Amino acid sequence: MQQMDGTADTPELKQLYADFDTHHLAPLWTQRDGLMPMTPSPKAVPHVWEWSTLFGLAERSGELVPVGRGGERRAIGLANPGLPGTAYATPTLWCAIQYLGGFETAPEHRHSQNAFRFVVEGEGVWTVVNGDPVAMRRGDLLLTPGWNFHGHHNDTDQPMAWIDGLDVPFSHYADVGFFEYGSERVTDEASPDVSRSERLWAHPGLRPLSGLEDTTSSPLAAYRWEHTDRALTEQLALEDAGHPATVGQGHAAIRYVNPTTGGDVMPTLRCEFHRLRAGASTPVTHEVGSSVWQVFEGEGTVVLGETEHRLHTGDLFVVPSWVPWSLHADSQFDLFRFNDGPIVDRLNFTRTYRPGQRNEDLA
Amino acid sequence: MQQMDGTADTPELKQLYADFDTHHLAPLWTQRDGLMPMTPSPKAVPHVWEWSTLFGLAERSGELVPVGRGGERRAIGLANPGLPGTAYATPTLWCAIQYLGGFETAPEHRHSQNAFRFVVEGEGVWTVVNGDPVAMRRGDLLLTPGWNFHGHHNDTDQPMAWIDGLDVPFSHYADVGFFEYGSERVTDEASPDVSRSERLWAHPGLRPLSGLEDTTSSPLAAYRWEHTDRALTEQLALEDAGHPATVGQGHAAIRYVNPTTGGDVMPTLRCEFHRLRAGASTPVTHEVGSSVWQVFEGEGTVVLGETEHRLHTGDLFVVPSWVPWSLHADSQFDLFRFNDGPIVDRLNFTRTYRPGQRNEDLA
Amino acid sequence: MQQMDGTADTPELKQLYADFDTHHLAPLWTQRDGLMPMTPSPKAVPHVWEWSTLFGLAERSGELVPVGRGGERRAIGLANPGLPGTAYATPTLWCAIQYLGGFETAPEHRHSQNAFRFVVEGEGVWTVVNGDPVAMRRGDLLLTPGWNFHGHHNDTDQPMAWIDGLDVPFSHYADVGFFEYGSERVTDEASPDVSRSERLWAHPGLRPLSGLEDTTSSPLAAYRWEHTDRALTEQLALEDAGHPATVGQGHAAIRYVNPTTGGDVMPTLRCEFHRLRAGASTPVTHEVGSSVWQVFEGEGTVVLGETEHRLHTGDLFVVPSWVPWSLHADSQFDLFRFNDGPIVDRLNFTRTYRPGQRNEDLA
Amino acid sequence: MQQMDGTADTPELKQLYADFDTHHLAPLWTQRDGLMPMTPSPKAVPHVWEWSTLFGLAERSGELVPVGRGGERRAIGLANPGLPGTAYATPTLWCAIQYLGGFETAPEHRHSQNAFRFVVEGEGVWTVVNGDPVAMRRGDLLLTPGWNFHGHHNDTDQPMAWIDGLDVPFSHYADVGFFEYGSERVTDEASPDVSRSERLWAHPGLRPLSGLEDTTSSPLAAYRWEHTDRALTEQLALEDAGHPATVGQGHAAIRYVNPTTGGDVMPTLRCEFHRLRAGASTPVTHEVGSSVWQVFEGEGTVVLGETEHRLHTGDLFVVPSWVPWSLHADSQFDLFRFNDGPIVDRLNFTRTYRPGQRNEDLA
Repeated sequence: MQQMDGTADTPELKQLYADFDTHHLAPLWTQRDGLMPMTPSPKAVPHVWEWSTLFGLAERSGELVPVGRGGERRAIGLANPGLPGTAYATPTLWCAIQYLGGFETAPEHRHSQNAFRFVVEGEGVWTVVNGDPVAMRRGDLLLTPGWNFHGHHNDTDQPMAWIDGLDVPFSHYADVGFFEYGSERVTDEASPDVSRSERLWAHPGLRPLSGLEDTTSSPLAAYRWEHTDRALTEQLALEDAGHPATVGQGHAAIRYVNPTTGGDVMPTLRCEFHRLRAGASTPVTHEVGSSVWQVFEGEGTVVLGETEHRLHTGDLFVVPSWVPWSLHADSQFDLFRFNDGPIVDRLNFTRTYRPGQRNEDLA
Repeated sequence: MQQMDGTADTPELKQLYADFDTHHLAPLWTQRDGLMPMTPSPKAVPHVWEWSTLFGLAERSGELVPVGRGGERRAIGLANPGLPGTAYATPTLWCAIQYLGGFETAPEHRHSQNAFRFVVEGEGVWTVVNGDPVAMRRGDLLLTPGWNFHGHHNDTDQPMAWIDGLDVPFSHYADVGFFEYGSERVTDEASPDVSRSERLWAHPGLRPLSGLEDTTSSPLAAYRWEHTDRALTEQLALEDAGHPATVGQGHAAIRYVNPTTGGDVMPTLRCEFHRLRAGASTPVTHEVGSSVWQVFEGEGTVVLGETEHRLHTGDLFVVPSWVPWSLHADSQFDLFRFNDGPIVDRLNFTRTYRPGQRNEDLA
Repeated sequence: MQQMDGTADTPELKQLYADFDTHHLAPLWTQRDGLMPMTPSPKAVPHVWEWSTLFGLAERSGELVPVGRGGERRAIGLANPGLPGTAYATPTLWCAIQYLGGFETAPEHRHSQNAFRFVVEGEGVWTVVNGDPVAMRRGDLLLTPGWNFHGHHNDTDQPMAWIDGLDVPFSHYADVGFFEYGSERVTDEASPDVSRSERLWAHPGLRPLSGLEDTTSSPLAAYRWEHTDRALTEQLALEDAGHPATVGQGHAAIRYVNPTTGGDVMPTLRCEFHRLRAGASTPVTHEVGSSVWQVFEGEGTVVLGETEHRLHTGDLFVVPSWVPWSLHADSQFDLFRFNDGPIVDRLNFTRTYRPGQRNEDLA
Repeated sequence: MQQMDGTADTPELKQLYADFDTHHLAPLWTQRDGLMPMTPSPKAVPHVWEWSTLFGLAERSGELVPVGRGGERRAIGLANPGLPGTAYATPTLWCAIQYLGGFETAPEHRHSQNAFRFVVEGEGVWTVVNGDPVAMRRGDLLLTPGWNFHGHHNDTDQPMAWIDGLDVPFSHYADVGFFEYGSERVTDEASPDVSRSERLWAHPGLRPLSGLEDTTSSPLAAYRWEHTDRALTEQLALEDAGHPATVGQGHAAIRYVNPTTGGDVMPTLRCEFHRLRAGASTPVTHEVGSSVWQVFEGEGTVVLGETEHRLHTGDLFVVPSWVPWSLHADSQFDLFRFNDGPIVDRLNFTRTYRPGQRNEDLA
């Protein structure tokens, strides 16, 4: 009898394996090791994309490719080198730079996929979400939860670029997505400073009595930089004064949340903002689930696996599942992060490991 | 045989009832009707307390009664005329005016009972909650959830008064309360404009990464008037512009919530703020559960049962369970409200009825 | 100036207190101590009712008092000696012996109050819950959640007695109850062994696809003795074999739960069954919330506060909040228990203390 | 300027696309349509595997391939013809026939992946889950939630086969899996009729007081055929008697649930059992998410997309996301089903569509 190593070194076994093929079957024992590794072994790899390169290519796209129905968006996705043939940043996450020229409009549509925009520089575009025009400015996080109609229009003569984050890879993988075209133009071309969703919902600890039903995604379309910046500043000031506030020494961080539940902004996407003081570092961390980070401001480095990368404003990098990462700040260092944390948490696969720390989180 | 009316008109029945007494028993059939009425039939009655009267008595108390250990607080409770011998506003709710003279201190203690303060006028007192000094100013809601140490100190030479709301009657009734003395002086005599809890938590839609565990009560110690006022102003402006925002025509309202859950600020107490435009009215409403309202600003009337009452700034009124109420605004009319909604909701007794409207909510 | 002891020994203070009365106000400082004691200080007292006495009085009631519309039920409530003038077992709980003669019918009605029946002896009555006839037999727990129509009919020529448990005192206190009369006769006079609710729901770990919506109360109308007995027997057998299964040494126990949630059977009432091996004891326990216990079978004692009571089949006893209790079994000792645990838990007042054990549960 | 169709028909555009490649980027506009289709467009295809073929190949494997450390299990996976190169039944689900010869042992291990076994015929194997031996018999569902040690041993001289269901494809895709070897032999070779988990948990509506903490997966290791069969029989009998009980006319069905929550048995896998009366049909149904069905007993047909398939005992078929399916029963027709419903529901992608019925479920 053979060992259970899958080696087909007898005619009988070769015939058995051939018959498996014929009948659309496959033995577990030849592939168990690859399918069920000791720890997560992602095909996706850590990678850094430089903002200057991205922005330059986006500009050239702006000259060569119109925005319009069908393609829908002038968005250029990060294609993880470990996931060839896809435009996926990680198995679950899409991340793209989107570029809209002066007075251009990206037409309205809606889809099951959850989406957000984060703005590292520029302004002048309004994203119109279910008819509510939402200004996009530096440092803002703008949400487009699944099945909300949305389009963008540039109200200025200057181009603007930002990043998009979506769960497109997950939705494509799990076959859960629907798509529907909307208006060719945005349904409301007004350009207010503040969206209606903010006027209703952006009051700390206050909930409109007309909005007492919990929603699966946040009803707040915009999370403004001024609030994020203030929250981080206060955390560091509290730490300075000796009070617990930061998530680690010199490391302030917030999670963007759905005010109706206190939970993640959307069912598949977690969004956070991190600020390190100059000189601060984070401990080496392994986490289940994959993340995309963008440097918002400052200088520093990230170690991904064994490799250190120097980072500048706008640079994006990807941390696949369980790949150890740590950050070090040379100046005050501000970073936006999004990941598939809600998927991992809601399906009970959460684990975190920090070498040298107690393993309490190793379920 | 007797009818089931409980009439003890035979010697045998008289003896039976006497034997019940002897053995600490009581028949249901003689009291079923009173115990289980067709609709809630509260002993508490609707009542209005005038602020000018309350404040005058509080001032006199300030002259005659010191603040100190044992009595703990110079607080004068609304004693519902239907609940004689108690100091209860309703069966579940305590509401008092508390008065602190210049430079006085109310010593620290903690108790299972949940508490808040709402300020209709004045400033200069800091309530110190678990060591965090929280300024009290006009229009602010300040929380002291169960088992948080707290004391108050007046940092000025002027007295200040405010209202306290607690679940003392419920806790006393259900025998759930614990009490513990703390420091004679407040543990932090600083007088910052903003509490540490606000610096961590009062950022709309942002949650500190150091605070990802949900808490049964809100971690936010202060809900500031400027946010409440802005939220209400925006709701009315959105209504003016034709967008859904208000809870009724001309009626803006917010609920104060726990940012970690989106739910009520404390497990037994619901707090809300309502604003009616001049000329607006609310529909006649019957609700299960009891409420206390305080006029914050403006002129108007409330109909409680069959009786109309004219209201002025600071006036307090009580709505017992299922007593119909409606408000009418002569000027812009701002009112704070608290009630036992979390008790009613969590124990699944919620019902609302508005005559003339569909009975959909009559479970 | 006076001390804060409330002593009105000056004319000014006497006048102040008189003015409080006039204006329906009451000072906190004179009553703080009583209202907010260091630990729960219930007026309800521990007490034991003997089954033989109860049953004898129920039989006499059966001869003297008819069952019919208005009084509705021939039920005799335990009246806690510490709560004079009421028929309350504890501040929150009603417990009565109900008696139905041969071929008698208790007419249908419904109410917001949650109710159950537990049968210590006898059979022959069907309780008809929303039209579903539910046989009542020894050891069974039968539910009548709030707002379900229900009546009882005796299908035999022999009387039957059982205990009723309800949240009548809570509902009356909090003014949350509605009541409605139904049919004079039960709406289905069939006498099946098994109710329709059991046929749908009493399959371990199986949920009908037609019942995927969670319900606030259990959809299962009957919890049969054979299942309870088997569960307890297995726990003790597992303990014998060295496996974790019991809640304490020699102490098996189950909680009756809503199969749609795993939580308590009804929003205000928790029901449990406990079995002690001969010779076993439970540790002295203080708990927030009040309980009623009934001996189902066996001999033993309970210590309530400082007093030991010998118990026999059918005896009922009450444990007010925070009163220490412990059980000791002389034979195998089976006890049914219900309490207001869901009220205490859902409103976040839970505390348990066992002297000599770690205080971990002292929140 | 080009249309947004992605055609690279100018040198500039060709160069732009080449530069995207160089920098690990990919434009959305050339692939948006494929990535975000109008409705889910799975690569997985509907397919039927015949039990006789599967079983024959399993028997041959039993002769040729030993069971042992490394390969771990003699399991042969359904390889969806639309997912070449994988052994995946659907993008998220693994389904295999596992075969264990007389007196063989499959060694213990544990993994993050959730798993179950369902037995269509045979008996004699015990699966040992965290040291608890669980008998496997016809019609039983046996759980092995993530990170539970488990091995199997055949206590007889006869081989046995069953199906395994796991979330291996999801775990591999999302990089969430950990794996650990355990004992070479099962840690308890006893062969009791009933597992300890059943002795603690398989009592309808009863929860051990020692198990009041909710668990993410069911604590019940075995769901026995006798209970499933009885539940389905009762549903059809209730339907016959005119009471609501079935999910559709002539269609009884149960979901296996976690008794601590009433929810799915494991965080990623939903398990159900369906019974159709002879002559009954189900409506054509589109659902988000993919399913695997196995015929347990009876004769009938399934229409998958446009194609009708005749089915016999043991046959397995796969329904990819949104592919319409309907069943028709020629005899009483019993089917086991599992799917990725918890993934779809928890991430809020649920949609169901039945042509000709109201679209109420089309979110």
